Amino acid sequence: MNILAISGSLRKDSYNSALLQAMKSCSPIEVDITIFDGLADIPPFNPDIEACNEPKVMALKNLLAESNGLFISSPEYAHGISGVLKNALDWLVSGEEFVCMPVAIFNTSPRASHAVRSLHEIIRTMSGNIIDEACITVPLLSSNLTPEGILNNNAMSESIRTAINAFLLETARKNEMAE
Amino acid sequence: MNILAISGSLRKDSYNSALLQAMKSCSPIEVDITIFDGLADIPPFNPDIEACNEPKVMALKNLLAESNGLFISSPEYAHGISGVLKNALDWLVSGEEFVCMPVAIFNTSPRASHAVRSLHEIIRTMSGNIIDEACITVPLLSSNLTPEGILNNNAMSESIRTAINAFLLETARKNEMAE
Repeated sequence: MNILAISGSLRKDSYNSALLQAMKSCSPIEVDITIFDGLADIPPFNPDIEACNEPKVMALKNLLAESNGLFISSPEYAHGISGVLKNALDWLVSGEEFVCMPVAIFNTSPRASHAVRSLHEIIRTMSGNIIDEACITVPLLSSNLTPEGILNNNAMSESIRTAINAFLLETARKNEMAE
Repeated sequence: MNILAISGSLRKDSYNSALLQAMKSCSPIEVDITIFDGLADIPPFNPDIEACNEPKVMALKNLLAESNGLFISSPEYAHGISGVLKNALDWLVSGEEFVCMPVAIFNTSPRASHAVRSLHEIIRTMSGNIIDEACITVPLLSSNLTPEGILNNNAMSESIRTAINAFLLETARKNEMAE
C-alpha cells in the first residue's frame, strides 16, 4: 500500500511533519509512506490556468494517482487550515485523483479544533473517503518532540500504530464492500 | 478614508474582483479603495521566515498599515476559502496591522456559506473588527456581469452603496465610542 503524506506546515521543525515522519518510521512492512516535500513549490491556484500546464501541480497529482491512501496533518493558523495546504488542495478539486481516496486527518494540537473541522468538510466535499477510525490527535504542541521522540513516547507510539492499522483495516474492508 | 480591497480569486474575470471594482467605482468621494493586486506574488507562508525578509509580504503589510478599513471577497473552493487568500492572511496573523481593523466580508454566491463562515471566524481570531452591517451577498455567480454590469443592476448597485455607507457609518460610530 502506497500512502502519500502531506504536512500543512513549511516550518523546518513542524510538529505536523514530525508526526508524519514518525508514522513513516513505524509503519508495517507492507506500507510505503511517501512524505510530500513540494508544498512550497505549488504555484498559487488560478482557475484560468490548466493544472496540466503546471509541472509542480502535475507532480503532486501523479503522486496521488500512484497512492492508495492519503495522510494529512495541518497546523491551525487563526482558526483555519494553512493557506499553503488549501492552495494545493484547490488545484486538486476538479481532478479525479481525490475521488474515493481513503484519507486520514491528524491533529497535533488538542486545543485546536477549527482547522481539523474545516479540513474534514473540505476533504468530504472533494469526495475523499475519510477513515474516521484513523483520524487521531497527538498532543505535540510545545512538546519539543522529534520523530524519534514521538516514537519513544509509549502512548504516542501506540496511538500512531493503532491509527495506521485502523487505516489499513478500514480501507481493506471498504474495498471488499465495493467489489 | 483609505480602504484596502482583497479578492480571494486570481481568475481574470473573477466575480469577487468584479464586485470590488464595482465598489471602487461607486464609492463616495471621501473614500479611496485600493484593490490589492499582489496576491499571486505572496510567498508560501513559512513560520521560520520573518515577514520583514519578504518584500511582497511587507508591501501588503504597509498597504494595510496605511488603510482604515479592509474589504475581502473570497470565492468558495470545496467549502473552504481560497488557499491564496488564506496564505496571505497567515503572514498577517502575528502582525499588528490587523488588530481592530474594520473589515467587511462579501460573498458573490448565495449558495455558498462555508467559506464566508470560515472567513468570519479567521478574521475574528485575527482581532479584526467585522462590520456586520456591511457584509453583503451579491448573487454574481453565473451572472456574467462585469463591474459595469453590476453597477447597471439597480438592486446590486443599491446593495453595494448601502454596504459602503454602513461600513463608513459603523466605523465612525465605533471610532467615536473608542475615543
